[in-house]
Amino acid sequence: MNEFIFRTATRADAPAMLSLLRSVTIEGDTLPFTSGVDSDLIDTQWFGASGCVLAYSHDQLVAMYRYGANMPGRGTHIATATFLVAQEARGQGLGRKLMEHCLKKAKASGFRAMQFNQVVATNLAALSLYRSLGFRRVGKIPEAFAHPQYGYVSAYVMYRDWAVMNS
Amino acid sequence: MNEFIFRTATRADAPAMLSLLRSVTIEGDTLPFTSGVDSDLIDTQWFGASGCVLAYSHDQLVAMYRYGANMPGRGTHIATATFLVAQEARGQGLGRKLMEHCLKKAKASGFRAMQFNQVVATNLAALSLYRSLGFRRVGKIPEAFAHPQYGYVSAYVMYRDWAVMNS
Repeated sequence: MNEFIFRTATRADAPAMLSLLRSVTIEGDTLPFTSGVDSDLIDTQWFGASGCVLAYSHDQLVAMYRYGANMPGRGTHIATATFLVAQEARGQGLGRKLMEHCLKKAKASGFRAMQFNQVVATNLAALSLYRSLGFRRVGKIPEAFAHPQYGYVSAYVMYRDWAVMNS
Repeated sequence: MNEFIFRTATRADAPAMLSLLRSVTIEGDTLPFTSGVDSDLIDTQWFGASGCVLAYSHDQLVAMYRYGANMPGRGTHIATATFLVAQEARGQGLGRKLMEHCLKKAKASGFRAMQFNQVVATNLAALSLYRSLGFRRVGKIPEAFAHPQYGYVSAYVMYRDWAVMNS
């Protein structure tokens, strides 16, 4: 198994982050974007988040996550997050490591829970991982995602608080 | 009953819109904002929406709504919307008229459904209105909203497509 180094993103990482975001976007079956994936999006949604962490392996960016408030003001105590793992780095447990790292950071930052707003129903790997980490389905949006192979598919809203968290 | 005139918002309406948004925000029990309610917010979230419609009564702005895509790209076919009715104009069926107007506009604009992401569980008037207009609960987020009287209360995700819509 590869060694992965986790660290906070800096401005110098922006081109590699954009490249990773584009490669996962092009797969088309997990992220909603079909256009507008540019350095502005990295600036606002990634560097603008509460935290933005990268995983490197042999000087290659292989995964990243961001987390931040899901809603403003009176909803700001619940975090949301986005996770990306490069195709060539999957199947090695990196997603789980990334999520465990993120949950600890979000808890330490004062959030009370984490929510995902749009987990595509066909993304079985993510659903299985999220469940194993204590997330449960709190919503199902019909036909929420225009999947490139399957047409309109449902998306789940998933949620967990820290009650099930040991560390 | 008052006569209400519905029309599309123009830049000249921005100060009145900000004033209405602030007055409803200050009530604290429906909208999440606790700060940042300023002309930038009106510009981005209201004038930046797919549509933004105002209700006037005797030259007074008494209600408004905006609608637009709830998600980018592969989620862009589902609309979301925000409705505000000034306190002094409530109880006259204006909310229902506004929503019926909005649903027609969203359908005509090509959206396939409408979704509300955060309907506060204590907002019984809104929940009752939404249900009567064909919305159903598709999610429940625990402790999603820091209510000024009740502390953390749940919020519902509500959804309807056009199948139940006659006109």
